[in-house]
Amino acid sequence: MKKLFKKRKYSADEYAQGILQGDRIILSRAITLIESKLHSDNELAETVLQKILPFTGNTLRIGITGIPGAGKSTFIEAFGKYLTSIGKQVAVLTIDPTSRKTKGSILGDKTRMEELANDVNAYVRPSASGDTLGGVHSKTRETMLLCEAAGFDVIIIETVGVGQSEVSVKGIVDFFLLIMLAGAGDELQGIKRGIMEMADAILINKADGDNITACKRAKQEYANALHMFAPQENRWNPQVLLCSAIQKMGIAETWQLIRQFEIHAKENGSFNRNRQTQNRQWMHDVISYYLQHNFYNNGSIKDVLPNQEQRVETGKTPAVVAAKKLLKMAEVAGDKKTCEIY
Amino acid sequence: MKKLFKKRKYSADEYAQGILQGDRIILSRAITLIESKLHSDNELAETVLQKILPFTGNTLRIGITGIPGAGKSTFIEAFGKYLTSIGKQVAVLTIDPTSRKTKGSILGDKTRMEELANDVNAYVRPSASGDTLGGVHSKTRETMLLCEAAGFDVIIIETVGVGQSEVSVKGIVDFFLLIMLAGAGDELQGIKRGIMEMADAILINKADGDNITACKRAKQEYANALHMFAPQENRWNPQVLLCSAIQKMGIAETWQLIRQFEIHAKENGSFNRNRQTQNRQWMHDVISYYLQHNFYNNGSIKDVLPNQEQRVETGKTPAVVAAKKLLKMAEVAGDKKTCEIY
Repeated sequence: MKKLFKKRKYSADEYAQGILQGDRIILSRAITLIESKLHSDNELAETVLQKILPFTGNTLRIGITGIPGAGKSTFIEAFGKYLTSIGKQVAVLTIDPTSRKTKGSILGDKTRMEELANDVNAYVRPSASGDTLGGVHSKTRETMLLCEAAGFDVIIIETVGVGQSEVSVKGIVDFFLLIMLAGAGDELQGIKRGIMEMADAILINKADGDNITACKRAKQEYANALHMFAPQENRWNPQVLLCSAIQKMGIAETWQLIRQFEIHAKENGSFNRNRQTQNRQWMHDVISYYLQHNFYNNGSIKDVLPNQEQRVETGKTPAVVAAKKLLKMAEVAGDKKTCEIY
Repeated sequence: MKKLFKKRKYSADEYAQGILQGDRIILSRAITLIESKLHSDNELAETVLQKILPFTGNTLRIGITGIPGAGKSTFIEAFGKYLTSIGKQVAVLTIDPTSRKTKGSILGDKTRMEELANDVNAYVRPSASGDTLGGVHSKTRETMLLCEAAGFDVIIIETVGVGQSEVSVKGIVDFFLLIMLAGAGDELQGIKRGIMEMADAILINKADGDNITACKRAKQEYANALHMFAPQENRWNPQVLLCSAIQKMGIAETWQLIRQFEIHAKENGSFNRNRQTQNRQWMHDVISYYLQHNFYNNGSIKDVLPNQEQRVETGKTPAVVAAKKLLKMAEVAGDKKTCEIY
């Protein structure tokens, strides 16, 4: 690897070449470029994306969620090490919607999976999640593509299962894994309503020592609950597995299950269909994001929105009347400003 | 009630007065006005809404969903008749996202609840659902407001639990009731993933004759499943009840439960908080709807969208590149056209 000077700027070709050669430093710089809010950076990032796109997609994308304390990092470290031990190249993108992107949180994340982060066949990167309106998965998706082009064949996207981001993550992965605990009391686990139904598998972690009996009972309960849901379009029956990330038990079994899923979904065509739908949806999400971004960042809208919201909340103005008033206002005031953010 | 001539047009004041006096014919005409796609009708409708808004809201809004065959209409007829028998005024708005709004489907809906529709203290009206992008609940919400101003104190919104509309309905009601069957095999019930978690109560219908044992078992299973979900913001524990709509059993109990919920939610403040959030969200939904409506109805977008979608689906163009290309195109081509639809 070349020694880089801080100020050195790459061309789109240099970025693309570096990424395709698996250069970690250029990959990291490219991800920073993707996450940049500068207009000029955005244009360059899109050119890079266009160049590397043909080299993406031949991978397995796994979303992993669960509340803090469920042992996600420990699991991902054990799982990632297992995958590199069987010859896989693993990229882990973590999304923490509760933390702003500071040096602190980046170091924090890296420290959490230190062993994996130091593995030459793995790459751990926290993903920016500053934007709330679709921004999370837009940037994360593009980061995922860069990692794929850099040669990683298993992409793990980790998110905390208590916010909105895991819904977005479901829309960008092939397999969605939910990590739960037994015996913590289901009400206390605080998993967001709706997440359980999105799971392709539920992993009950910390199934070790005195906790095994409780985990077996929880496994049965979750299996019963999953059974109540209508089948997914891909006809996959979500499974419940036990695991002890700390004792490295259930790790290989999880990979086996994911492989079973992959074979199942590729055989019945749903794997590819899902990817196509996700791509199309991604485009519409980006459109929706910018339409709303432009609207809500319009100066005159910003000024009057709180008052209109308050009038609508308290029943003084019908929602539709307030909405149209704001729409008209944006049209008159904001027409030309919107260009700059594209 | 006055005899009306077909061509007679009302002013906003005449609409408002008629509605507040509980005139069913004017109410029906006002709902048609709300559902109209004509620009001039929209303006009049919004003025009417503004006038009647102070007389809305002091009601209970109940969403009812379930797959076809679960017995929703039979239940609503029995439930509605029970409510009118204890002095309530009941409006039933039905949303069938699968049927276009034709004379046929309107008559069909009315026939389904004939007894209730002929009750002087009830009003049954199918709600148009032509628009998919948020249009369903936008029109239904406004229709609900008109019914409230006309003096109905329980509003029932019925929808088929297999599409997207019940998610919208959850966002406009105080209490969300899911009607299920026992013994049909959960996989066969085809209820959309995510719906069960939105329920404030699950009613297992057709709990009569030989079916009672199966229903009791199902009740336990659903209660276990509901237990797995995190509590809602309102701290209400969703309940499972048995009922036989055809034998009019479990009807009064359902009303008791809903009243319990109302007391609970009003005591802890979540009832009003939920309404305020819904109102604010409604405004943002309308904004989002029109932003997207304008974009996707732009002539030049319509022309190129299929090709861009196809390129994105098959991985030829990055989603973000296609999205921005389309956004730029809409901006250049469509600027002034958008005004007319507000």
